[in-house]
Amino acid sequence: MLRWLTAGESHGPELIAIVEGLPAGVPVSLDAIRADLARRKLGYGRGSRMKFEQDELNISGGVRHGFSLGSPVAVRIGNTEWPKWVEVMNPEPVEETEKSRGRSAPLTRPRPGHADLVGMQKYNFDEARPILERASARETAARVALGAVARGFLAELGITLVSHTLSIGPVRVPENSALPTPSDVDRLDADPLRCFDPATSELMVAEVDAAKKDGDTLGGVVEVLAYGLPPGLGSHVHWDRRLDGQLAQALMGIQAIKGVEVGDGFLTTTRRGSAAHDELFAIDDEIVRSSDKAGGTEGGMSTGTVLRVRAGMKPIATIPHSLRTVDVATGEAAGAHHQRSDVCAVPAAGVVAEAMVALVLANSVLEKFGGDAVEETKRNLQSYLAAIPAGLKTATVSTPDIP
Amino acid sequence: MLRWLTAGESHGPELIAIVEGLPAGVPVSLDAIRADLARRKLGYGRGSRMKFEQDELNISGGVRHGFSLGSPVAVRIGNTEWPKWVEVMNPEPVEETEKSRGRSAPLTRPRPGHADLVGMQKYNFDEARPILERASARETAARVALGAVARGFLAELGITLVSHTLSIGPVRVPENSALPTPSDVDRLDADPLRCFDPATSELMVAEVDAAKKDGDTLGGVVEVLAYGLPPGLGSHVHWDRRLDGQLAQALMGIQAIKGVEVGDGFLTTTRRGSAAHDELFAIDDEIVRSSDKAGGTEGGMSTGTVLRVRAGMKPIATIPHSLRTVDVATGEAAGAHHQRSDVCAVPAAGVVAEAMVALVLANSVLEKFGGDAVEETKRNLQSYLAAIPAGLKTATVSTPDIP
Amino acid sequence: MLRWLTAGESHGPELIAIVEGLPAGVPVSLDAIRADLARRKLGYGRGSRMKFEQDELNISGGVRHGFSLGSPVAVRIGNTEWPKWVEVMNPEPVEETEKSRGRSAPLTRPRPGHADLVGMQKYNFDEARPILERASARETAARVALGAVARGFLAELGITLVSHTLSIGPVRVPENSALPTPSDVDRLDADPLRCFDPATSELMVAEVDAAKKDGDTLGGVVEVLAYGLPPGLGSHVHWDRRLDGQLAQALMGIQAIKGVEVGDGFLTTTRRGSAAHDELFAIDDEIVRSSDKAGGTEGGMSTGTVLRVRAGMKPIATIPHSLRTVDVATGEAAGAHHQRSDVCAVPAAGVVAEAMVALVLANSVLEKFGGDAVEETKRNLQSYLAAIPAGLKTATVSTPDIP
Amino acid sequence: MLRWLTAGESHGPELIAIVEGLPAGVPVSLDAIRADLARRKLGYGRGSRMKFEQDELNISGGVRHGFSLGSPVAVRIGNTEWPKWVEVMNPEPVEETEKSRGRSAPLTRPRPGHADLVGMQKYNFDEARPILERASARETAARVALGAVARGFLAELGITLVSHTLSIGPVRVPENSALPTPSDVDRLDADPLRCFDPATSELMVAEVDAAKKDGDTLGGVVEVLAYGLPPGLGSHVHWDRRLDGQLAQALMGIQAIKGVEVGDGFLTTTRRGSAAHDELFAIDDEIVRSSDKAGGTEGGMSTGTVLRVRAGMKPIATIPHSLRTVDVATGEAAGAHHQRSDVCAVPAAGVVAEAMVALVLANSVLEKFGGDAVEETKRNLQSYLAAIPAGLKTATVSTPDIP
Repeated sequence: MLRWLTAGESHGPELIAIVEGLPAGVPVSLDAIRADLARRKLGYGRGSRMKFEQDELNISGGVRHGFSLGSPVAVRIGNTEWPKWVEVMNPEPVEETEKSRGRSAPLTRPRPGHADLVGMQKYNFDEARPILERASARETAARVALGAVARGFLAELGITLVSHTLSIGPVRVPENSALPTPSDVDRLDADPLRCFDPATSELMVAEVDAAKKDGDTLGGVVEVLAYGLPPGLGSHVHWDRRLDGQLAQALMGIQAIKGVEVGDGFLTTTRRGSAAHDELFAIDDEIVRSSDKAGGTEGGMSTGTVLRVRAGMKPIATIPHSLRTVDVATGEAAGAHHQRSDVCAVPAAGVVAEAMVALVLANSVLEKFGGDAVEETKRNLQSYLAAIPAGLKTATVSTPDIP
Repeated sequence: MLRWLTAGESHGPELIAIVEGLPAGVPVSLDAIRADLARRKLGYGRGSRMKFEQDELNISGGVRHGFSLGSPVAVRIGNTEWPKWVEVMNPEPVEETEKSRGRSAPLTRPRPGHADLVGMQKYNFDEARPILERASARETAARVALGAVARGFLAELGITLVSHTLSIGPVRVPENSALPTPSDVDRLDADPLRCFDPATSELMVAEVDAAKKDGDTLGGVVEVLAYGLPPGLGSHVHWDRRLDGQLAQALMGIQAIKGVEVGDGFLTTTRRGSAAHDELFAIDDEIVRSSDKAGGTEGGMSTGTVLRVRAGMKPIATIPHSLRTVDVATGEAAGAHHQRSDVCAVPAAGVVAEAMVALVLANSVLEKFGGDAVEETKRNLQSYLAAIPAGLKTATVSTPDIP
Repeated sequence: MLRWLTAGESHGPELIAIVEGLPAGVPVSLDAIRADLARRKLGYGRGSRMKFEQDELNISGGVRHGFSLGSPVAVRIGNTEWPKWVEVMNPEPVEETEKSRGRSAPLTRPRPGHADLVGMQKYNFDEARPILERASARETAARVALGAVARGFLAELGITLVSHTLSIGPVRVPENSALPTPSDVDRLDADPLRCFDPATSELMVAEVDAAKKDGDTLGGVVEVLAYGLPPGLGSHVHWDRRLDGQLAQALMGIQAIKGVEVGDGFLTTTRRGSAAHDELFAIDDEIVRSSDKAGGTEGGMSTGTVLRVRAGMKPIATIPHSLRTVDVATGEAAGAHHQRSDVCAVPAAGVVAEAMVALVLANSVLEKFGGDAVEETKRNLQSYLAAIPAGLKTATVSTPDIP
Repeated sequence: MLRWLTAGESHGPELIAIVEGLPAGVPVSLDAIRADLARRKLGYGRGSRMKFEQDELNISGGVRHGFSLGSPVAVRIGNTEWPKWVEVMNPEPVEETEKSRGRSAPLTRPRPGHADLVGMQKYNFDEARPILERASARETAARVALGAVARGFLAELGITLVSHTLSIGPVRVPENSALPTPSDVDRLDADPLRCFDPATSELMVAEVDAAKKDGDTLGGVVEVLAYGLPPGLGSHVHWDRRLDGQLAQALMGIQAIKGVEVGDGFLTTTRRGSAAHDELFAIDDEIVRSSDKAGGTEGGMSTGTVLRVRAGMKPIATIPHSLRTVDVATGEAAGAHHQRSDVCAVPAAGVVAEAMVALVLANSVLEKFGGDAVEETKRNLQSYLAAIPAGLKTATVSTPDIP
C-alpha cells in the first residue's frame, strides 16, 4: 500500500511531500523530478507566476545514492519567492501592524469558483488568505514530484504514462485521432498545448489568444494513457477496490476538475450495446480485443491493453475582468480578488493528471504483487504473467481490423 | 468515519452488508430499506430477473426497536431462488458429477465488457462463474440497503437525496430543464424511466422499445441531487479529503459506470471563465450564488446549495444477439454467455447512485461533526451553522435572476 | 490488504462477519470454523451460557465448493436462543408495554469494569442494554470464525498457530517451560485450562475451584505462537507498519485484555543488554539465533523464528457477589447487574487471541507478497525465500546450546 | 481523522513530518516543539550523540502567525551533522571509490536485537546501512515534533499529558506511589531519570552507573498519564475503535518497546475479580469511581478519569562489549557494529510515548467531536459534556477512601 501526504502553502517557505510504501531499489533522481516539475509549467497561456516559480528541489529522505531505501521518500520544493512573503506567511507571530498592510491585508472579497468563501465558513476565518494559500494549484507541484517517483517505479516494471490535451474550450481533437505513445512525449511537450494533433493545436493557440484578448480564461479536457499494464490491477470484488473508481477520485481530486471519463466515457452512454464493447478474438495463441472503447478496464480491473482516462477542467476562476462577489467585511458588492493571471492551465493539468494516475497505479501494482524491493515486485509480476494459462493469455494491443 | 463492506454472490444464498460507524438513535426500518430495494427494480426495460429477485430482508445487528445502537448495522438479503442454485453455488464441496451438468457447467465463453476474462486471469480460474457471480449488478442491492440506512441518518439532519434519469442512449432531457426536488420523488418513481421531463420520458420509452426489438441494449446518464447540505463537507486541504473526488470514486465504483460529472461537468470545460462560475451577491443579510453551475461544490467542499453529480452508464454488455468472444476451453470463436435480459438498467442505476452518494455524505457529515448519537451530530451541525458570522452566511438556494 | 467487520449483539438474532481481501483458492470449510468456535468454549470454569450458545453456522458468500472465490467471505452465526429474546432485541418496534417487563426491563445498574456506564454517556442511552449487548464477549465468536478463515490461508503457506495458557490468577507456568508446537494442539485443547504444563494445570484447576467457591472470578495470561513465518513481515520504516505494534492492537482490542507482550516482554526490561538479545551464529550455511527472547520480531519485523506474543486478561468483571454500583435511574447505591456466570474465561481468550493473530499475520503476508489466488501468494513467498542470498539465509529455529 | 507520516534517515539531511487533519486555530509554536525535542534528549545515561543532535527546526506548512490553518502541518528537523555524512547518505549518486571508505564502508555485521539482519533480507540489501538509518531511534524526533503539535491541540481542550519513569532495569518505583500531575512536569524533567520518586531515582542513577562501568545497557518501564479527558473516546463497538488497542499499537510501535499495559496491566491478571475493578458510588450528584485500577478505560473507552498506560523498553541492543554476530560478507563470526553509546534511553522513551499518546488522543477527540476549527471541536466537546444527563455524570477523579 502506498500512502502519501503533501503539505505547504502557495506562498509559504516550501512544499513538502512524503510517500510511504515505495519498495527499495527504485531509481529516484532529482533530475527526473525536476523534469516533471518543469513539464508542469508548460503550456501556452500560462501567466507570469510560472516564471517566478523556481523549484528549489531537495530529497529529504528515503533515497541514497540514487535509489530508494524502502523507507518513506520525502521531497521538498522551496519557494524562491519566500523572502517577499515572510511577513505574510510567517509560521511565527508577527507584529500586528505589519499584518494589515499590502500583501498582508485581509482578503475579504472571496472569488467565485474557488474555495475561498466556503473555506472561510468551514475553518472559521474572516478572510480568505488561510484558505486560498492551500487551495491554490501550487500544491500540485508536490503531487507531480511524488508522481515522478511513482513513475520511476512503474518504469522498472515496463509501465509508461503519456498525457495529452484533448480540448481547449470548444476546440477539440477529432474523434478517432491517433493516440500518442511513450515515444511521442517529447513531441507532445514541445507542442504549445501538449496536443497531439498539429492542426487542432493551431486552433487551440488561436482560442487562447482570443480569450486573452477578451480578458477571459479557458478550460479543457486532458487524457492520460498508461502502456504496459498487466491485466488484473484493481478488482471487481468490492466497490473501492475498482481501479476505475480509484482513478476517478484521483483525477476529480485535482483542483478545477469537474468531470472524469474512462475510455470513451459519456460517448459510450449514447451507443447501443452491440456497438459499445470490445469484442474478443483468438489470434495466434492470444485473445485479442477488437477495440479500446472501454479504456483498458473491465469490471474495475486493468485488462492489459492501454489504459485511457480523461479529466475535464473548468476554466480558471480568477479572471482578469473580475467576477462579481461580496466584500464580507462590509457586505458590499465588489470585484473578486485577483491572484493569478493564466489564461489556460489545461496542459499543466495533463501533467498533474499523469502524476495522480502514476500514484494510483503504483499502489495497485503493490496491492497485487507486493514486494519490498523493486526486483521482488518485478519477479512477482513476471511470474504472474507467466502463470496465466495458454488459453487465457491476452494481447496488450487491440486489433481493430479483425472482422 | 463510516466503513462498510458487502459480501455475497449473485446466485448465492444471500447478500450481506455491514456498515460501521453509524451513530446511535438513527431510525432504521425494514420498510424503508425494502422501499429502496423495490425502487432499485424500477424502470422500463428490465428483464425477468427483477421479478424473481424477491428480497427477503433481515437486520442482523445494530438496530433495536427501530433505532440504531451505535454498533455496526448489518443487513441480509436472502436469495429466494437459492434452492435452484444450491449445487452450483454451494459453499461446501459437492459431488464432482453434479458440477459438470446444466447450471453448473463451466462458463468458458467470457463476455466482452464484463469482468469475466480479466477476472479469470487475476484470480486464477479456468471459467467465469467465480467472477461473474460477484461482478454482477445483483451486489448493488446490498449497497442500496446500506444507502437506505445512510439516508435515514441524513434525513435526521435535514438532508434529502433525489435521483433522476438524464438520458437513455441518445435521448436526453433538454439543457436547463427544471430539477426535481424531494417532493417529486414519488412522481419520479412512477415514471417508466425515472425521468422528470414527461416529453423526454416518452421518447425514452420509444428508444427502449426500439432497442428491444433490435435485440440490443441501452445506457444513459443519471443525476443525483442532495438538498439541505451544510456548507463545508469535504475539504480543499488534501486531495483525498475533497468531497467531489470521493463522490467520483463512489459513482465510478458502480458497475458499468464510465463517466462522472460534478455540476455541469464537461459542459463547463467548453465555457469561458466569465460564463462558467457562480457569482456572489449580497441579498438580505445573506450571500447568494447566482447559479448552480458548479454543482454545489467549491474547492472540493459542499457550498450549502444543491449538490449535483452525474454518472454515465454504458449499455448493458450482455446482449441478446451475443457479442463475439473466444471459448477459452477450446480457443475457438464463440458467442458470449448470456446471463440476463435487461434492455436498460439506467433508472436502477440512479437508485444505486443515490445510495452511494448517501454513504459518502453520511461519512462526510461524521467527519466534520462527529457524534455518537444522532442528537449529538445534529447539535454539532446546528451550532456550526449558528456560529457562522453574519457577514459569511450563505443562502441554500441560488437566485438566477439577480443581474 | 485484509479488511474485516463484525456485527451483531449478544442476544440478537445472529452475529455476522465479513472479511475482504482473501485470495481465491483458499480452502474454507464449515467444519474448520465450527471446530474453532467449539474451541472458543473450552476451559474449566465456564458458565452455563457456553452450553446454550449453539453456533448455527452459515457461509453467506465468498466461498464455493469449499474454496474461497477472492470475493468477500461472510459468515453468519445464528443465536439459537433468539426466540427467547425476540421482544427484547427486536430490530423492529415492539409494543411499549412489553419492553418494560422481565428481560426487557431497563438495565440501570451499570457494572464496574464494563463498558456499561461510559457507553451510556457516549451513545446517549439511559440504560445499559444497548451497550452491553455489543460489548459482550459473545462478539468474539465472529472474530474466531474469521480467524479460522485466516488460519486456513496461512496453513496453505506453511504457517501454523498455537495458543496456550501461561497463568490463571496467581498460578503461572514456570519460566523456561517448553513451548507447545503445532503437534501439541489436541493435547492442549484437552487440558482443562489449555495449559501445556500438566502440573501447573492441576494447580490452575484448584485455583478455579477456590475462586468459584468464593463466588469470585479469575484472569490470567495467554500466549500465542506462530510457526513457519518467513522473515520480513511488518516493517521498521513507519511506526504503523510494525508487526509488533499491529499485534499489540489486535490483542489489546480483545475484551478484558489489559496487557500485551512480545517475546519476554516486561521481563526483558529488567535484564541487562548483554543478556537480553538473541545473538547470531553461523552454522552450516545459515545464520542461527541463540535464543528466542525477542519473540520472533526485530525492528518490528518477523525474523522467521517462532513468533511469540502474550495477552493479559483481567478477571471477569461480572461477579456472583455483585460489585458495588449506582442505579442511574434513582441515584441510589446498588449491586451491579449480573449477566454471566463464568469464573474464568482465560482459555477461551487464548483461542480468540489466536484468531486475532491469524488475521494480523494474514494481512501482513498479503502486504508483503500480494497475490489474488493462494497459489500466487505462495509462489511469491517461495521465490522471496529462494532469492535471499546465501550469506543472509537464517534458520527457522534457534539453537540455544551454541556457546 | 488525523493522519501522519514521517520520513528521514538517522544521518540524512533532515527529518520530515506531516500531520494532516489538525483543525484550524490551534496554537503551534517552534518554541513548544523545540522544548519537547529537548526533553527527548533528557536522561542520565545518554551518550554523546544527544549533544551532537542539534535540532534545526522549521515549520514548512500549515501554520501562519502562530496558529494552524487547517491544512497539513509539516515540520522539518535538520541534521547539523549532515556535512559529515553527505557522501555516505547522499540522495544522489556518488563516486564509487568514495563509497567504500570510512563511514561509507558496508556494514556487514548485523547487530542482534536490531532491524539490521531481517531488514537486509526483506529489502534486498547486502549491508545494514540502508536499514539501520531508518530503524534508528533518531526517527522518534519527528514523532515528538508532531506530538508537540497534537499536545497543543489537546491543551486547548483542557487535556494534559505527563510521563514518568517507573523502572530502570530491576529498580522500580514502589507500588502505590503517588502519580505525578501536570504541575509536576518541570520537576520530572529535572530529575536525572524522569522518576517521580526521589529515593528510587537515586537507586536508578546508581544502576546506570553500574551498567556503564560494566560496559552494559539498561531498559525499563515508562508510564504516560492523560488528565482532563472526556468520557467516551474510543469505542467498544468494533475492535479497532477501542482506545486501549490504539494506544497499545502506538506504544508498541516505538523502537525497543516489548510490552504495553493499560492501568495495572499484568498485575490485574493476578487479582481476583472482587478486587480488580473500580467500583461506582454516588457522591454529590456525581458517580465516582473508587479506584483507578483500570487505567481510565472501560470497554475500550476513556472513562473521564486519568488515563494511564505503560510501555516496557528492552535494554539498548548496541552494547559497548559487542554482542556476537556473523559477518554476512564472509560468513565468519564477528562482533556487532557499534553505532551509539547510550547506557539507557528510558527517560527519552517516556517523552516519545507521550507524543504517541498525544497523537492517538488527538485523533480520538476528532473522531468523536469533529470540528475544523479548534473552537468548533471545543464547542462540540463542551456541549456533549453538558448534555450528559444528571444521573449519568461522572467525576474526573476517583475517591479511594469511600468504603
